[in-house]
Amino acid sequence: MENVLILKGNILYSENKDTIVCKANSYLVSKDGVVAGVFEKLPAEYAACPVTDYGDKLILPGMVDMHIHAPQFSFRGNGMDLELLPWLNTYTFPEEAKFENLDYAKKAYGYFADRMKKSATTRAVIFATRHREATLLLMDLMEQTGLDTFIGKINMDRESIPELMDKGPLDSAYSTFGWINEAMKRFKLSKPILTPRFIPSCSDALMNELNEIQRTYHIPVQSHLSENPGEVAWVSELCPWSKFYGDAYDHFGLFGSEGKTVMAHCIFSGEDEIALMKKNGVFVAHCPASNMNLSSGIAPIRRYLDENMNVGIGSDVAGGESESMFRAIVQTIQVSKMYWRYIDETKKPLTFDEAFYLATLGGGQFFGKVGSFKEGYAMDAVVIDDSIYPSPIDMTIKQRIERAVYLSTDINGIVGKFVNGSKVL
Amino acid sequence: MENVLILKGNILYSENKDTIVCKANSYLVSKDGVVAGVFEKLPAEYAACPVTDYGDKLILPGMVDMHIHAPQFSFRGNGMDLELLPWLNTYTFPEEAKFENLDYAKKAYGYFADRMKKSATTRAVIFATRHREATLLLMDLMEQTGLDTFIGKINMDRESIPELMDKGPLDSAYSTFGWINEAMKRFKLSKPILTPRFIPSCSDALMNELNEIQRTYHIPVQSHLSENPGEVAWVSELCPWSKFYGDAYDHFGLFGSEGKTVMAHCIFSGEDEIALMKKNGVFVAHCPASNMNLSSGIAPIRRYLDENMNVGIGSDVAGGESESMFRAIVQTIQVSKMYWRYIDETKKPLTFDEAFYLATLGGGQFFGKVGSFKEGYAMDAVVIDDSIYPSPIDMTIKQRIERAVYLSTDINGIVGKFVNGSKVL
Repeated sequence: MENVLILKGNILYSENKDTIVCKANSYLVSKDGVVAGVFEKLPAEYAACPVTDYGDKLILPGMVDMHIHAPQFSFRGNGMDLELLPWLNTYTFPEEAKFENLDYAKKAYGYFADRMKKSATTRAVIFATRHREATLLLMDLMEQTGLDTFIGKINMDRESIPELMDKGPLDSAYSTFGWINEAMKRFKLSKPILTPRFIPSCSDALMNELNEIQRTYHIPVQSHLSENPGEVAWVSELCPWSKFYGDAYDHFGLFGSEGKTVMAHCIFSGEDEIALMKKNGVFVAHCPASNMNLSSGIAPIRRYLDENMNVGIGSDVAGGESESMFRAIVQTIQVSKMYWRYIDETKKPLTFDEAFYLATLGGGQFFGKVGSFKEGYAMDAVVIDDSIYPSPIDMTIKQRIERAVYLSTDINGIVGKFVNGSKVL
Repeated sequence: MENVLILKGNILYSENKDTIVCKANSYLVSKDGVVAGVFEKLPAEYAACPVTDYGDKLILPGMVDMHIHAPQFSFRGNGMDLELLPWLNTYTFPEEAKFENLDYAKKAYGYFADRMKKSATTRAVIFATRHREATLLLMDLMEQTGLDTFIGKINMDRESIPELMDKGPLDSAYSTFGWINEAMKRFKLSKPILTPRFIPSCSDALMNELNEIQRTYHIPVQSHLSENPGEVAWVSELCPWSKFYGDAYDHFGLFGSEGKTVMAHCIFSGEDEIALMKKNGVFVAHCPASNMNLSSGIAPIRRYLDENMNVGIGSDVAGGESESMFRAIVQTIQVSKMYWRYIDETKKPLTFDEAFYLATLGGGQFFGKVGSFKEGYAMDAVVIDDSIYPSPIDMTIKQRIERAVYLSTDINGIVGKFVNGSKVL
C-alpha cells in the first residue's frame, strides 16, 4: 500500500476537551497524511506495510502554537520589566525594525526555524514583521522545516516609529497584496494570514483595505485583543466610535464574520466582546507566559471552555519566554489556579487533560481536522523519549505524559516529529 | 600557593538585593574554598597558579534551594489536581511510606542525588522522610555529590497513616537523637536539621522533645508555615491555645528564638506572625511553583524584601514540578506580577536582579557567608554555556544571564560546578 505510515508505541490523544485516550503499545496508522486509526493489533490490510517501532516511547499529537512572533525570538528571555505598551516601544519595535536588513533576517529567522523544527510544535500561527522580503524569507525557512503554519506580514500605519510603519494605508495594503500573491505561488505549508498588528497600529483606512483583501483572498486573520488595561483604554480613545475593543475589528469585518480569526490574549474582554466572539467563532489564543511576564493578567479560560468557545494556546514569544508548548500547557494550568484562588472561586482550575486538549485539538481546529489521532485527522505526531526522567515508580502512560509535559520544557526528549504524515524530525 | 582555585570567564553575582555585578572576562580567585576576589587582571601573587579558563561562558554563584523534598522527587510533575491537605494524603504520604524499604530508597534517592549533582544548585535544605536508615542513606548519597546541604529526618506523630508516623513523641524524639548522632559522626557536607513536618503532624509533646534536642545540639530547624487556608484553619483547631500558626512553633522555641529557622511558603501570614518572624530572623523559603500547582496562592515577597526579612527561594519538589532553581527564579518574578495586578497594586513586581539575589545570596545567608562572590564568601560557583541559545543580538553579560535563567529550566548548559572550592561537576 502506498503512502501508508505506521508508528508503534504508547499512543495518546485528546478525544474531546475532557478526555485523553491512552493506548499502550499500539499502532497509529495513517494514509496520505491522514489518520486511519489507532489499533492495539495491526489490522490485516496493513500487514505488509513497514512499521516504525518507537518501543516504550510516547506518541502524541503535535503541539499547535496559536500565537508566536518569529522576529522576537532573538530577545526571548530578556526585557521582562515593562508592561505591554512601553515593552513594545522599548524592546520590540526597535528589534523588529532590523528586519529591513535581509542578512539580519536570515540569521535571526534561521535560528527561529531551526528551533521550531526541533520543538514539539507541528503547527503554528506566526507574526513576522511588516517587511515583505523578510516575511517571504521566513515563509521559505519554515516551509523547509516541514511544519504547517500560517505566517503573517504585519500591517502598521500609525502610532509607531517611522522605520516600522508602512507609508500610509494604501502602501500597506498594496504591499500586502503583493506578498500574498507571491506567498501563495511559492509555498504550500507556509500559508499567508492577514495580520493587522493591533488596533492602535492600524488606521481605519488601512482596516478598510484589509477587509477588501480578505474578501478577495479568503485568508484568515490574526491579531491581539484586550491584553492590557492601558491598551484597552487606548483603543477606545483611537476608535471613539467603537462599542468595545473587538468591535473595532468587527466594524471592518475582521473579527470572524467574514473569515476564520484568532485573537491573542482576551484577558479583559467584557460581556459584549465575549458574546460577539462566540457568535463569530473567533478563536482565543491563550498566552499565559506572556500574560505573566508583561504583568497583563489572567484570561478567564475556564469560562471560555465551559461556554464552548474556540480556544487554543500560544507561546507568544517573546512576551512568553519560550517556544515550548509543554511549558505553555503547564503555565495554563498554573495561572488557572491563581485565577480560581484570587479572581473567581466559581471558576475551577483547568485539569491537565483540558490544557493538553487546548494545546492540540483546541487550537488544531483553526487548521481543520488537526490535533488528535481520531480517524480523519491530519497525521501530526510527536515522539517523546521520557527515559531521561528515571523513577522507581511504575507509571501509567497518562502519568508519564503529564510528567514529560511538566518537566520537558526544553527540546530534551523530543525524538521524532511528523506533519501531515511526513517525517520532519 | 596551595588550595588556590582560579576560574576565568564572564563573572556575575549579587552585590546586594538590588544589584548584580557583571565582570566580563575576569578572574574569580579563591583560597581554601573561600573567595579572595574578582579581578579584571590577575594579581601578581597568583601568577604561578593554574587558571581554569571558561572562555566566553558565564560564571555565577551556585543556586541555594531553600526547600525541597527528596522522597517526592519520584513523582514530580504528577498529581497536580489537589490542594495541599488532600494532596498530602493522596500522593505524598503513600509515596513516603515506601522509604521504609531501603532498596526502594536507594533507587529513588540515587536518581535524586544524580539530578541534584547535575543541576545549578550547590546548597539545599532538604526534607527526607521519618525513616532513620533511609535518611542516613540520602545523606550519604548527597555527601558523595559534593553539594553542601541540610537534610532533615521528618518527625510526625499524629494525623497521618500509621506507616508514616513514629510511635508517639518519645519514639520520635529518641529516633531523632540517634539519627543526629550518627549523621554528625559520618558526614561533613550533609548536615542534620530538625524537621517537624508541620504543626498538624506533631503533637505538643513531640514539639517539646524537639526543643530539648535543639537545646542539646544547636542545629537549625525547617518546617512549613501558612501555606493554605485550610491548613491554617486546621492548625488553630489543633492548637487552640496558639495566637497564630507561627506561634504554635514559637511556643516550643522552634521559631527562630533558639536557633536558625526556615519556614516554607508564608503565604497567609498575618501581621503578628510577620512581626515575630522579623523579630526572630526566621527565613522564608518562597516556593512559587508549588504555590501555583497546589492552588495555594502567592506570598507577599515584595513586602518581605522591602522590610528586610530573610528570604530565599525553594523548588519545593514535588509541590513544585522541577528542581531547577532557574525555573524557580522565573516563577518568582511571574507570580509577583500577578500579585501586583490582582492582590496589591502598591507592591511592585520583583525585578530579575531581586529574584536572582533571592536564589543565591538571599537563601545563602542561611548557610553563612554563601551566595555571592564578595570577598570572604564560600567559593560556590556554577558555569553556564549559553551558546546553546544562538542569537543575532550582541548581548551584554547581564542580558545573557537573564536569558539563560529564563530558558535553561533544565540541566542544559550547566557545564561546571564548584562547592566550597571543590569541583563537583
